[in-house]
Amino acid sequence: MVEIAAEGRMTRRRSRAGGAVRSSAPGRNPHLEVPFITRGIPTYDILNDEALCRIEATADRIMAEIGIEFRDDPEAMQLFRAAGGQVTELGGERWNIRFEPGLIRDLLKTAPARFTQHARNPARNVEIGGDAVVFAPSYGSPFVMDLDKGRRYGTIADFQNFIKLGQISPWLHHSGGTICEPTDVPVNKRHLDMVYAHMRYSDRAFLGSITAPERAEDSIEMCRILFGADFVDSHCVIMGNFNTTSPLVLDGITTRGIRAYAAAGQGSIHLPFLLGGAVSPLTMAGSVAQCLAESMVSCALTQLVRPGAPAILASFQSSMALRSGSPTFGTPEPALGSLVFGQLARRLNMPLRCAGNFSTSKLPDAQAMQQSMMSMLSAVHCGTNYVLHSAGFLDGLLSMSYEKFMMDTDLCGALHAYLRGVATDDDSLGFDALAELGPGQHLFSTAHTLRHYQTAYYDSALDDNQPWETWDEQGGIDAATRANARWKAQLAAYEAPPIDPGIDEALNDFIARKKASMQDAWY
Amino acid sequence: MVEIAAEGRMTRRRSRAGGAVRSSAPGRNPHLEVPFITRGIPTYDILNDEALCRIEATADRIMAEIGIEFRDDPEAMQLFRAAGGQVTELGGERWNIRFEPGLIRDLLKTAPARFTQHARNPARNVEIGGDAVVFAPSYGSPFVMDLDKGRRYGTIADFQNFIKLGQISPWLHHSGGTICEPTDVPVNKRHLDMVYAHMRYSDRAFLGSITAPERAEDSIEMCRILFGADFVDSHCVIMGNFNTTSPLVLDGITTRGIRAYAAAGQGSIHLPFLLGGAVSPLTMAGSVAQCLAESMVSCALTQLVRPGAPAILASFQSSMALRSGSPTFGTPEPALGSLVFGQLARRLNMPLRCAGNFSTSKLPDAQAMQQSMMSMLSAVHCGTNYVLHSAGFLDGLLSMSYEKFMMDTDLCGALHAYLRGVATDDDSLGFDALAELGPGQHLFSTAHTLRHYQTAYYDSALDDNQPWETWDEQGGIDAATRANARWKAQLAAYEAPPIDPGIDEALNDFIARKKASMQDAWY
Repeated sequence: MVEIAAEGRMTRRRSRAGGAVRSSAPGRNPHLEVPFITRGIPTYDILNDEALCRIEATADRIMAEIGIEFRDDPEAMQLFRAAGGQVTELGGERWNIRFEPGLIRDLLKTAPARFTQHARNPARNVEIGGDAVVFAPSYGSPFVMDLDKGRRYGTIADFQNFIKLGQISPWLHHSGGTICEPTDVPVNKRHLDMVYAHMRYSDRAFLGSITAPERAEDSIEMCRILFGADFVDSHCVIMGNFNTTSPLVLDGITTRGIRAYAAAGQGSIHLPFLLGGAVSPLTMAGSVAQCLAESMVSCALTQLVRPGAPAILASFQSSMALRSGSPTFGTPEPALGSLVFGQLARRLNMPLRCAGNFSTSKLPDAQAMQQSMMSMLSAVHCGTNYVLHSAGFLDGLLSMSYEKFMMDTDLCGALHAYLRGVATDDDSLGFDALAELGPGQHLFSTAHTLRHYQTAYYDSALDDNQPWETWDEQGGIDAATRANARWKAQLAAYEAPPIDPGIDEALNDFIARKKASMQDAWY
Repeated sequence: MVEIAAEGRMTRRRSRAGGAVRSSAPGRNPHLEVPFITRGIPTYDILNDEALCRIEATADRIMAEIGIEFRDDPEAMQLFRAAGGQVTELGGERWNIRFEPGLIRDLLKTAPARFTQHARNPARNVEIGGDAVVFAPSYGSPFVMDLDKGRRYGTIADFQNFIKLGQISPWLHHSGGTICEPTDVPVNKRHLDMVYAHMRYSDRAFLGSITAPERAEDSIEMCRILFGADFVDSHCVIMGNFNTTSPLVLDGITTRGIRAYAAAGQGSIHLPFLLGGAVSPLTMAGSVAQCLAESMVSCALTQLVRPGAPAILASFQSSMALRSGSPTFGTPEPALGSLVFGQLARRLNMPLRCAGNFSTSKLPDAQAMQQSMMSMLSAVHCGTNYVLHSAGFLDGLLSMSYEKFMMDTDLCGALHAYLRGVATDDDSLGFDALAELGPGQHLFSTAHTLRHYQTAYYDSALDDNQPWETWDEQGGIDAATRANARWKAQLAAYEAPPIDPGIDEALNDFIARKKASMQDAWY
């Protein structure tokens, strides 16, 4: 409709020094690129203090009257007993521990409100906490899918592909963890290949293994090779993403993994995965109270191991299809739950992981992005600091989708613009823009328009905004098909970030030794 | 995954008396059905008072220093001159009018903060203003589209179909206005068939014609037949949706239409349609300031004609594709603009129309619902009272989509659940649900779960939440295909609401006389 000369545009080259200049390539928004987002809009607080106090009091009652069950980790039990927890032996390496109101809250006072996770490229270090927002890919799907080959088990090649697609996107800030399960690698050796892939194909921060304490240790040991042991002891360079066993259980695999990360001074995420009606109350206030109790106790373990260790309070709420009992994602009630949980995290002064681009759809279709937006906007509105599942999530977390990954990262780009907020300086108020030509005159040629047109609006790499006739002449292509073409083009354009050859060799030596030390295990 | 016996479910029958009982039919959520929503969550306020004052001061400067241009309506000019506006003759029935800061704001003090628009079925009256939220279908598309027949010009049959689909949906509250252009009816007679279709095929409130002052008068006259002249004089039963001619112009067709609705005591919406960079500044603060100035002046005219006449402040912000100059919808910057405009409307204590299910996609695909959600959530978060464009919007408003209409109404249902917010009464806090069986025990069978499972979560009529294998066996159908089947099933199930035969005859007589009184005009 309007032609604006693309004068003054230059090709863009993003360097480690951080210099970024304009580009006319679709989907490039160099003015929005940042190593992590600093939010320019407030959080969306939907409950008042009294309601929040009622939820907190319920969490306190859960901890004090019902208690948390610990399994198969006497050391974790002893740490909590020494801190004042009331331990009841349940037999068979199982203990119920109750906590007087205020006890866990006191333990959490040494946890940092904000910390830095270091990347091997220091320009890509991320801040976690406060007004910082970090987007990371989805986590944990056994399957992958794309429009060409449909749904199949994930492989290490898929895993590497998603790291590469993440690395090349300016709209993610973190390489994530188990982006998909590399099911072609033995279960007991998988973590070595996954951690290496993050280290080699990305230069961003990442998550390590949590499936067994020794795999957590391997993950941290590989970081010592990459970053140096002294650096690792005094800086957070890796994090583990731990799930509680809801309702109200922390098993030994989990607590020993948490202890391993905390002892090394590394970060950990403490996530109850709450399917309402199955492992938590169906009502959101109850689910949020339980989530708070579980995540607080899990976080507190880190402070007993090493006060000051980074810990992230977390929440994953899902709803249920009432006729089938299937879990549902991207629905309205969990979005509300996220908004409330964000308020509670801020009252604890702790970093938060919450929600993401969730969907139960099996295709990158309208349902997929409608549900994703409902969930993802709750994440950014509730003040989430670390948004795992920011890209690729389909099929109720069972599948990583190549096309959805591209849609989600493009949406993450839009959220960079959104989270900047609305500037109200004189130039942004734009009085001169209207005064220049006055009523009834288009503003295309005003000095204000020419000054702002390159940076005023987010430029999507995927959306079709052409007139219908142009779109139709070009084949009438839908968003999923465009995303399919784009992930292939992006993978073809990928270049691995440089790595010190000596470090690379040392990492490969470590992996080879570890793999040689054990038989393949497939379960 | 989980089987919950559907015991105690009953078939549902919605009566005029408002009784609603449970149903096991997919997509039925009788506990959420209301004639309009009363919001249970606060608005999302992103700017502080100082920033809002800066925007208001800019709007004041626009009105005082640049002024608004009026065209072809000496009476509107004289009304503003008598109220204190400083008129400059521009020649050719054009006047620039400037307003001292505070003047327009004073005139708006007689406008109601909240009012009722009456429907012919009193159970479907809607409240507009305050914490009430009303969803209405999209408005103004020349084209319609569906998956079977693609894109074509809209007809009166399409227009009637969309009214029927709206009427049958529990998630819209208002029948809207020019849902699509019935291009097979002469331009000068179209309004008669449109207003009649709303009156006959819906029993909800609706919008009348604004394309010419005499068509506005016809619309109101038909209401006098339907509701009785005395009732119409003292109750709002119809509204007109008026666009300013941005930047900063109010033409005579518009102001004479506004005067017609206001003189009859009927409602009017005052909407600047602001495409940034074309007819408003590219920067959101500037666009919002201009929008405020234009809408305030347009609203003020109603109060000069008849103090107390219902008037709705409105905002339609869109962005621009930087390479093509095409308008874009559902993008992040206008969503921010809506949030800010909502704050300004509340400071004026006036009802608000803002945003909707906007998209530039040409298909009911992932882009369509991603953009829709971005825009629609800004509408409900910013406190919009009357959400026009709640269903069907595709193709940058050029096309009404049958499938998108179904997706959007289903989303509107989800927003009914969302806007209820989070209850924190003792039962919702759910302590007993966890205490009943304790740690490690599923909650499926708890009394709390059985008490809440039918009403805890919104049940979508369109989303597929089945396991992948079930979905695959059933053909692997996407959301658009499901929506296609659903609009056909809904149209087949439609039953027209009863109407008094005498009134129906009187309406048809009026239309026949009007049509016979003029030649067909096609422009």
